[in-house]
Amino acid sequence: MTYCVGILLKRGLVLASDSRTHAGVDNFASFCKMSVFERAGDRAVVLLSSGNLAGTQAVITTLKQRGESEDDAPNIWSVRTLFDFVTLVSDAVRDIGRRDGPYLEHSGVKFDASFIIGGQIKGEPPRLFRTYAEGNFVEASPETTFFQTGEAKYGKPIIDRVIKPDTSLSDATKCALVSFDSTMRSNLSVGMPIDLVQYEADSLKLDRRRRFDDGDPEFAALSREWSEGVRTVFRRLPDVRW
Amino acid sequence: MTYCVGILLKRGLVLASDSRTHAGVDNFASFCKMSVFERAGDRAVVLLSSGNLAGTQAVITTLKQRGESEDDAPNIWSVRTLFDFVTLVSDAVRDIGRRDGPYLEHSGVKFDASFIIGGQIKGEPPRLFRTYAEGNFVEASPETTFFQTGEAKYGKPIIDRVIKPDTSLSDATKCALVSFDSTMRSNLSVGMPIDLVQYEADSLKLDRRRRFDDGDPEFAALSREWSEGVRTVFRRLPDVRW
Repeated sequence: MTYCVGILLKRGLVLASDSRTHAGVDNFASFCKMSVFERAGDRAVVLLSSGNLAGTQAVITTLKQRGESEDDAPNIWSVRTLFDFVTLVSDAVRDIGRRDGPYLEHSGVKFDASFIIGGQIKGEPPRLFRTYAEGNFVEASPETTFFQTGEAKYGKPIIDRVIKPDTSLSDATKCALVSFDSTMRSNLSVGMPIDLVQYEADSLKLDRRRRFDDGDPEFAALSREWSEGVRTVFRRLPDVRW
Repeated sequence: MTYCVGILLKRGLVLASDSRTHAGVDNFASFCKMSVFERAGDRAVVLLSSGNLAGTQAVITTLKQRGESEDDAPNIWSVRTLFDFVTLVSDAVRDIGRRDGPYLEHSGVKFDASFIIGGQIKGEPPRLFRTYAEGNFVEASPETTFFQTGEAKYGKPIIDRVIKPDTSLSDATKCALVSFDSTMRSNLSVGMPIDLVQYEADSLKLDRRRRFDDGDPEFAALSREWSEGVRTVFRRLPDVRW
């Protein structure tokens, strides 16, 4: 399983991913699911992967290789909008799906590579997309300002309650971390390290990146203070009248 | 879908259930999923139903009818422990399953009637059980003090964080309501009214019962104050260092 979340705010973006991959409880490993494409002053884009690891790695590598090609085809470094960037991701997903899909289906496995893609390309505001395994995709709007992939249910209520378009980047970042903490407490297949990016609108650089490894004292303190804070809120709520 | 939760504390029990039943988005209705068996001073037991409505109704009615029978067979009013009470529920589940199961399977539906059962019979402490569709069952312990059935994921993290064996009945009651509020915001197939019971250990009576209908001002205030309290906690948490 996986847990990834991307949040679009007026002031920028917050994106985070876990690192656990597994094929059964006795076959798990740690892989970074966050890929960053940055050319300071021009574009800053973050991809969060979920699905079969072989598929998502192939998509990312294909995007990188096509970006280094000398030919004139549009690539991740040349496109002028994030919509066009996501279309390139979609093309790569479909190319890999055509190549691997029939072999996977032979073993009863469905090809699955989906992405949360957030960032900004110079000339347009920050945007946030979510692609599906079929390669189609949706964009966040003021009514729905965040996307989750993987084990999304445990961590959704706190984002639902806290995040509005004008929430500060700082509060949204803490909210994303609490959402991960809640998910990891309930599902062993979502695990540390957590990769986190906070992107400030119009900065066109990704200098606020952080990895939280297992036992990270800052993450542990956040989790503890959150639990204590929540218990205090309960004590102050009015009692039910019978 | 359904959402039911039962919490066992040193000071008693909190039990709550939603009321939505549905077979598709254009076929839904409201049915109380909470059944109460009380003989003040002797026993106070609450059942929360989930599964096919026809199955759970048949189980409850069978338990009631057997309890009114003149024969010497043990029944819900005569058994001396909650374990024996739950065994009677299990027997009824299996009887109805034997009767209805083959016909349901003919239409590709699995017989499903499961219950959260909490309460106290004079002579033993309060106890909490959860039965499965197969009629087997488990009992809560100090390590796992609550059971959920139905759409459990959205409402689990807040219970995980707040509930310990020595949590007050008042805080646990508010926590259960917030857990319902979180679930109903995310899953349309869980819906009002919410039936709620707070049972104080050794009282052997069920006088703290409450139904929250759609638009209940007390429930709305709780939800609003909770959201505001949570946002305040986020603002006070230390910011992430980059």
